Amino acid sequence: MVGGGNDAFIGAVHRIASRIDDQYELVAGALSSTPEKSRASGEALGLPRIYDDFKKMAAREARRKDGIEAVSIVTPNHVHFAAAREFLKRGIHVICDKPLTSTLQDARKMVKAVQESEALFVLTHNYTGYPMVRQAREMVANGEIGAVRVVQVEYPQDWLTIEQDFKQAAWRTDPAQSGAGGSTGDIGTHAYNLACFVTGLTATELAADLAAFVPGRRVDDNAHVLLRFDSGAKGMLWASQVAPGNENGLRLRVYGETGGVEWAQEDPNYLWYTPFGEPKRLITRGGAGAGEAAGRVSRVPPGHPEGYLEGFANIYSEAAAAIRAHRDGSPVPEGVIYPTVEDGLAGVVFVDACVRSSARNAAWIKLV
Amino acid sequence: MVGGGNDAFIGAVHRIASRIDDQYELVAGALSSTPEKSRASGEALGLPRIYDDFKKMAAREARRKDGIEAVSIVTPNHVHFAAAREFLKRGIHVICDKPLTSTLQDARKMVKAVQESEALFVLTHNYTGYPMVRQAREMVANGEIGAVRVVQVEYPQDWLTIEQDFKQAAWRTDPAQSGAGGSTGDIGTHAYNLACFVTGLTATELAADLAAFVPGRRVDDNAHVLLRFDSGAKGMLWASQVAPGNENGLRLRVYGETGGVEWAQEDPNYLWYTPFGEPKRLITRGGAGAGEAAGRVSRVPPGHPEGYLEGFANIYSEAAAAIRAHRDGSPVPEGVIYPTVEDGLAGVVFVDACVRSSARNAAWIKLV
Amino acid sequence: MVGGGNDAFIGAVHRIASRIDDQYELVAGALSSTPEKSRASGEALGLPRIYDDFKKMAAREARRKDGIEAVSIVTPNHVHFAAAREFLKRGIHVICDKPLTSTLQDARKMVKAVQESEALFVLTHNYTGYPMVRQAREMVANGEIGAVRVVQVEYPQDWLTIEQDFKQAAWRTDPAQSGAGGSTGDIGTHAYNLACFVTGLTATELAADLAAFVPGRRVDDNAHVLLRFDSGAKGMLWASQVAPGNENGLRLRVYGETGGVEWAQEDPNYLWYTPFGEPKRLITRGGAGAGEAAGRVSRVPPGHPEGYLEGFANIYSEAAAAIRAHRDGSPVPEGVIYPTVEDGLAGVVFVDACVRSSARNAAWIKLV
Amino acid sequence: MVGGGNDAFIGAVHRIASRIDDQYELVAGALSSTPEKSRASGEALGLPRIYDDFKKMAAREARRKDGIEAVSIVTPNHVHFAAAREFLKRGIHVICDKPLTSTLQDARKMVKAVQESEALFVLTHNYTGYPMVRQAREMVANGEIGAVRVVQVEYPQDWLTIEQDFKQAAWRTDPAQSGAGGSTGDIGTHAYNLACFVTGLTATELAADLAAFVPGRRVDDNAHVLLRFDSGAKGMLWASQVAPGNENGLRLRVYGETGGVEWAQEDPNYLWYTPFGEPKRLITRGGAGAGEAAGRVSRVPPGHPEGYLEGFANIYSEAAAAIRAHRDGSPVPEGVIYPTVEDGLAGVVFVDACVRSSARNAAWIKLV
Repeated sequence: MVGGGNDAFIGAVHRIASRIDDQYELVAGALSSTPEKSRASGEALGLPRIYDDFKKMAAREARRKDGIEAVSIVTPNHVHFAAAREFLKRGIHVICDKPLTSTLQDARKMVKAVQESEALFVLTHNYTGYPMVRQAREMVANGEIGAVRVVQVEYPQDWLTIEQDFKQAAWRTDPAQSGAGGSTGDIGTHAYNLACFVTGLTATELAADLAAFVPGRRVDDNAHVLLRFDSGAKGMLWASQVAPGNENGLRLRVYGETGGVEWAQEDPNYLWYTPFGEPKRLITRGGAGAGEAAGRVSRVPPGHPEGYLEGFANIYSEAAAAIRAHRDGSPVPEGVIYPTVEDGLAGVVFVDACVRSSARNAAWIKLV
Repeated sequence: MVGGGNDAFIGAVHRIASRIDDQYELVAGALSSTPEKSRASGEALGLPRIYDDFKKMAAREARRKDGIEAVSIVTPNHVHFAAAREFLKRGIHVICDKPLTSTLQDARKMVKAVQESEALFVLTHNYTGYPMVRQAREMVANGEIGAVRVVQVEYPQDWLTIEQDFKQAAWRTDPAQSGAGGSTGDIGTHAYNLACFVTGLTATELAADLAAFVPGRRVDDNAHVLLRFDSGAKGMLWASQVAPGNENGLRLRVYGETGGVEWAQEDPNYLWYTPFGEPKRLITRGGAGAGEAAGRVSRVPPGHPEGYLEGFANIYSEAAAAIRAHRDGSPVPEGVIYPTVEDGLAGVVFVDACVRSSARNAAWIKLV
Repeated sequence: MVGGGNDAFIGAVHRIASRIDDQYELVAGALSSTPEKSRASGEALGLPRIYDDFKKMAAREARRKDGIEAVSIVTPNHVHFAAAREFLKRGIHVICDKPLTSTLQDARKMVKAVQESEALFVLTHNYTGYPMVRQAREMVANGEIGAVRVVQVEYPQDWLTIEQDFKQAAWRTDPAQSGAGGSTGDIGTHAYNLACFVTGLTATELAADLAAFVPGRRVDDNAHVLLRFDSGAKGMLWASQVAPGNENGLRLRVYGETGGVEWAQEDPNYLWYTPFGEPKRLITRGGAGAGEAAGRVSRVPPGHPEGYLEGFANIYSEAAAAIRAHRDGSPVPEGVIYPTVEDGLAGVVFVDACVRSSARNAAWIKLV
Repeated sequence: MVGGGNDAFIGAVHRIASRIDDQYELVAGALSSTPEKSRASGEALGLPRIYDDFKKMAAREARRKDGIEAVSIVTPNHVHFAAAREFLKRGIHVICDKPLTSTLQDARKMVKAVQESEALFVLTHNYTGYPMVRQAREMVANGEIGAVRVVQVEYPQDWLTIEQDFKQAAWRTDPAQSGAGGSTGDIGTHAYNLACFVTGLTATELAADLAAFVPGRRVDDNAHVLLRFDSGAKGMLWASQVAPGNENGLRLRVYGETGGVEWAQEDPNYLWYTPFGEPKRLITRGGAGAGEAAGRVSRVPPGHPEGYLEGFANIYSEAAAAIRAHRDGSPVPEGVIYPTVEDGLAGVVFVDACVRSSARNAAWIKLV
């Protein structure tokens, strides 16, 4: 693991997620930006092999016979590319937190680095790991709501309603570390990715009206975005970090010619299915009406809620399946899905387009 | 009453609403577009005085000593102005369904007609009559959420998901009768009015991306709108008639510097109040935390749900209070609020701006 | 109207309910227990004919050619019988609030008085007027959940959590006025009636553990009741006036061999239908899946919530249909349902059994 | 691990739960009732040490220097005691699934065995591991709802609505394996334990009306139970396996003199807190209003839902904390709570009392 030291949130999440299905063992790390902090964090976790920095780690692990097969990169965004490159070029698989990078330039380099590597690259757009998100995607793909017309996606939070000075907030509101997008990068990319993942559509252009409501904030903390998709479908995306009462309110609603699906991250075991002209149906994870796509990433019976960590673990387990297939030279098993570097690039393109559109008074910007 | 014959939906609603608080007696009407239908509908209702058309009705009622004090106009939109003018110029108060008119030109004429009349004009933006909408407005005005930053309002329905040919659908999708806006006029105006009513803000410009998804439809059935307000607040408005599973999903969320409020029309007795840094609170109509503004338009104790008809009745009762004050030459009692012709004009300006913006690829259009 | 003076809650409810569908005109009343108060209340309402007491009212109205056809009795419980008797014996229809009487003896007399009268008797178990309650009843009757096994009904409130001294509380906690049951009489009877109404079953015995938690309270404020039905089904009934956070939480859940239905009074436009082995379905008033029984007592389209007053009005309108049929000598129209004096007797038997069972340490008491 | 072979549900749950916080390593097992199955299951899991049966496992592990410190027992109920005894008498800590045993006799022996052992005994009443259950308990203990008056607990499921013949259903409906209680033992014990855990009260007597609705079923599938507590509080408990639409609907509502708390297992990250005379508040895991007791068993920020497995993992991590303290001879850290053998005995006493009460027509049975 690179990043994820003592005071990081997402590092601990990755560690738990990787343990849940017993597919990974954490054996090495460069957990922080200084050798001292990295050592302290590594020792606190009882890591067998602790490195001063990711360069040394990549070089030495690549030389070991029992070196790591895969690395998780959970640093602030601006470090993703430099770190990933070191491992990719040595054939070590990379599991990287989102957004892909802090700049569009880096994102394009990352795509190239992945293309030139034999190793796999997995981006942890973890919300695509939720069983009922898989269910929604499968239903849309199967035509159960007809051709998609309208996509409403939102991701409101409230933690940046006031100025915050703890570390999580600090780097996420510093353009040098997070990238030019604030709410767009941190959560808007998740919302955008989810909308595309479930609908199977490609967004072709967007118009964005961004705001930084909190005095002194250097990146957007609220984003209003209009979307147009290749199929003619239209969408709205709202991301906000200044919406009091919203903790992590990612929510997707998709409406087609014959029905709709609605899903909310905070109550992830439910999916509303609304066939036009019939009563609404509440499909539950593992319950009647839930299909194969949800079932294969589910662990416990209906009514026993799975949550954020299990959804995150599904990305890790999909990655493990892909890594095993890669190792064996066999095809990736049917049904395995994980977010790729191209998804990551699409997210950074989205952020870049939002920022440019907003600077031009919400003019339309092409995405493809 | 003008309009509201046998097969009309909204006429019956106005009649019930006017009865609930026992402030009106229905004694005369020109209920339909032909004398025969008007007579048949009037007889079915046992109306004492039935007229062939609204012109005759206005003229004759104005001459009677016991003539009507107020008229309800519940025709399709394109008739509102012509009908209202007849009564206004004779000093008969007008209670008119929304949107104000089908064209901006008529809307401006209506404002002039009201200004030149001694009579009152009340527009039935009925959702402003709900107690918890009044509560939300009072809380925002009292600073309980701080300065407003973000306004999310939506009004999804699904009844026009497929082509419909019954009367309700027919005139609402005919630009000659409904005006140039489809979903924008029929429900977008409600959403827009509600957002302005609760926040007390004035929208200054908008950018709209409209769609007519159903083949052959001549007016928009889905509207994605970005809003900017005079205070610097920003908003999103979504109106749709093609969102399966949504019956009448008007919903408003307002977020300020220190808190938020959330209200949904289908569950109207609840208001979420979300002060930043405190647990969310569910305020109920009549319950603890509900204030004076809600209390004065509420009839039964908390837990005994009031609904659409009671909210509508509140507009009628507010109008009655204003009419009585007018009659007595006394000031309108404190707390009485009703939508005015200016609110109606703002709605028609909104529709016109949406249509023009969308025709110019969602360019910003000034509203004031 | 008898009772329902200035400071009464339920009188105003009855008046609004009687107006909503324009089937009644209120022309006479003895609205309070003293002539002075009765007069003051009557004048405040603008009543044409005000009486000192119900005896005079019954006698004089019966003699008038234009005398009342029906009377609403909305006094405290212990007056119901004496008042109803006066009207029944003169052939004036009675619409009476619940519970039927304050004592079992009076209840039996009331049944006899109704049997001996030509007039109709309607008990306002108003919750049976809700469209989705009718829907539930129709679905159970049609076998859509199979033979009923389990009935869970509850009616928690919180307004008597502390000692209250206003009038509503005073008579409801005085055994001389309300009867021996407190929560059992005031709300338990509603819950019991609803359970029997929806399931179509007859309860054969009960075991009750009552409590009066508030110091000094002379009647039960919490009731835990086990029920057994003639079909072999079993049930639980909970009524409470001391459950903080519950305003008027009447809720019914019925489970049969092949499915279930769930309904809650505070969100009355929804009915959950849970066929075993299929996703849960949310049926809405007026929406897809709602049938004839709900449709005929519904006024506005789905998504436009109807509430407590509309449900109450349905009882009045059913009564009006029955009265018109009675007047015409024709059969009551198909589908018309209203609670009868026998339902009222069953409620008083229920209260009496609860009190006796609890006094015998929750021994089983036969109900039929 | 003892039990938990290939086709068992709860074994896999225990394994995941033990991994989440990285406190356990699974190294040995006797996973099934025959040596062959045990071996096959152990190999599928890659277990280092596989035993034919629990006797051999206990004996040999106790002799190893690197033998197991603790064992998880996840067999059908009737095996719990015999298995636990082997480990307890050798000083190996036992983590045992609930209910404690299938008979009251065994339960008493288990208590004795624990008392005579130096080892710890932890019962996985996993629902007590949910953060918001801890929150509720802390709030009740802190007097935030006043003295408890009413306890409503229920645990409806629907999976046994029809006769099932797969393994999970088979042993749970066989009195020889599950004990005399069906729904009472499998889920009623959870509900009962939860009610006592949160309120801190001791139930003193109960009256139960059990049913076996499905033809041919030999144990109860529906239980209606009245409860009385030492403090004078009263309760109702409903457990059902035949309530269509209910997956795993454990729900607890506790009402005191000044407020209430409400929690539902299927939406476990929320706790309603209802102080009398104030608006209801929705406390979220990790959000404002959540205290220390919830915080110490929580992993991710508010809005990132934790679920069943994390709650289960909390029991394992509490056990780990206790085991480490035991190893070090230090006191158990403050705040650590886990269900004990006495809680297990209380559960078996509850089942026994339910069965005896029901056999005597719901007579009251003393519990203490």
